[in-house]
Amino acid sequence: MEPQRYSGSDLLIPPLNFGMVYPGIYRSGHPNNNNHNFMKKMKLKTILVLCIEEVSGNEQFYQDSGIQVLEFGIEGNKEPFVNMPEDVIRRALQVLLDVRYHPILIHCNKGKHRTGCLVGCLRKVQKWSLTSIFEEYRRFAGNKVRILDQQFIELFQTDQVRYDRRYKPSWLT
Amino acid sequence: MEPQRYSGSDLLIPPLNFGMVYPGIYRSGHPNNNNHNFMKKMKLKTILVLCIEEVSGNEQFYQDSGIQVLEFGIEGNKEPFVNMPEDVIRRALQVLLDVRYHPILIHCNKGKHRTGCLVGCLRKVQKWSLTSIFEEYRRFAGNKVRILDQQFIELFQTDQVRYDRRYKPSWLT
Repeated sequence: MEPQRYSGSDLLIPPLNFGMVYPGIYRSGHPNNNNHNFMKKMKLKTILVLCIEEVSGNEQFYQDSGIQVLEFGIEGNKEPFVNMPEDVIRRALQVLLDVRYHPILIHCNKGKHRTGCLVGCLRKVQKWSLTSIFEEYRRFAGNKVRILDQQFIELFQTDQVRYDRRYKPSWLT
Repeated sequence: MEPQRYSGSDLLIPPLNFGMVYPGIYRSGHPNNNNHNFMKKMKLKTILVLCIEEVSGNEQFYQDSGIQVLEFGIEGNKEPFVNMPEDVIRRALQVLLDVRYHPILIHCNKGKHRTGCLVGCLRKVQKWSLTSIFEEYRRFAGNKVRILDQQFIELFQTDQVRYDRRYKPSWLT
């Protein structure tokens, strides 16, 4: 291996709050120009956007890179009366559970609440215990944990999630 | 898809502080009996242990599952004079950067400090910016962030890391 420089312009900057969810699925906050080199290396096929707000600025990059953008715009849970729509989460899960869309990146603005809820519901489909799901949710939410989000995940009914078994990820049983 | 039950004994429990690092590489705190079903589904080939302490209790499970255990026992960084040995980290990286060991799980006791340092050094090899590396380190360390760990990562020399290019992961360039 040749000596490696660690400096300046060749550094890679993942999007804010970036993490892997499971093979083929990634999560983060809203990407910006600084993240494009990193995202190129990820060889993404799909971006699943949970924002309603108009904040992109990545359209040209996505187009040039042949990345398909799927919009599932929702508002986050807010006390006392804003609740995330379960049917949108179910449709988003249908995409996540289809390898034809992988590698896929889920993002909202901060990668904490809406992304955290969707990932939490995915973990329920994977049959993770609630303690483990909440531990992960809190890790990404930091000091912005929302009890309503955890309640949303707890009450989410996995038996109404539909997906095409022919294209399900190998890690789903 | 058949209706899915979400209850009781069929729930999966990932090890404490579990996360994916990058395709083929996982991290966590120390696994125990509760995690064996989850770990079976991960189809792990290798466990990279950073503990010195005798705390396992998983030997039988690893043996029955054909999982190879590689021990790189080190002490974590502690003020003022305990410093993690760089050469052990370099040898551990050589394993992480060899797909013949994948899927591989790195763990220490809590999955915060020693694991956080090794993952941080891996991120430097991947050329992540320090800001991004520290964001990830802090996410897993929670309120137990150690400045010495961050200093260790910052000063770590990636040009002395050696690995076999024939077996490097496809995501490493």
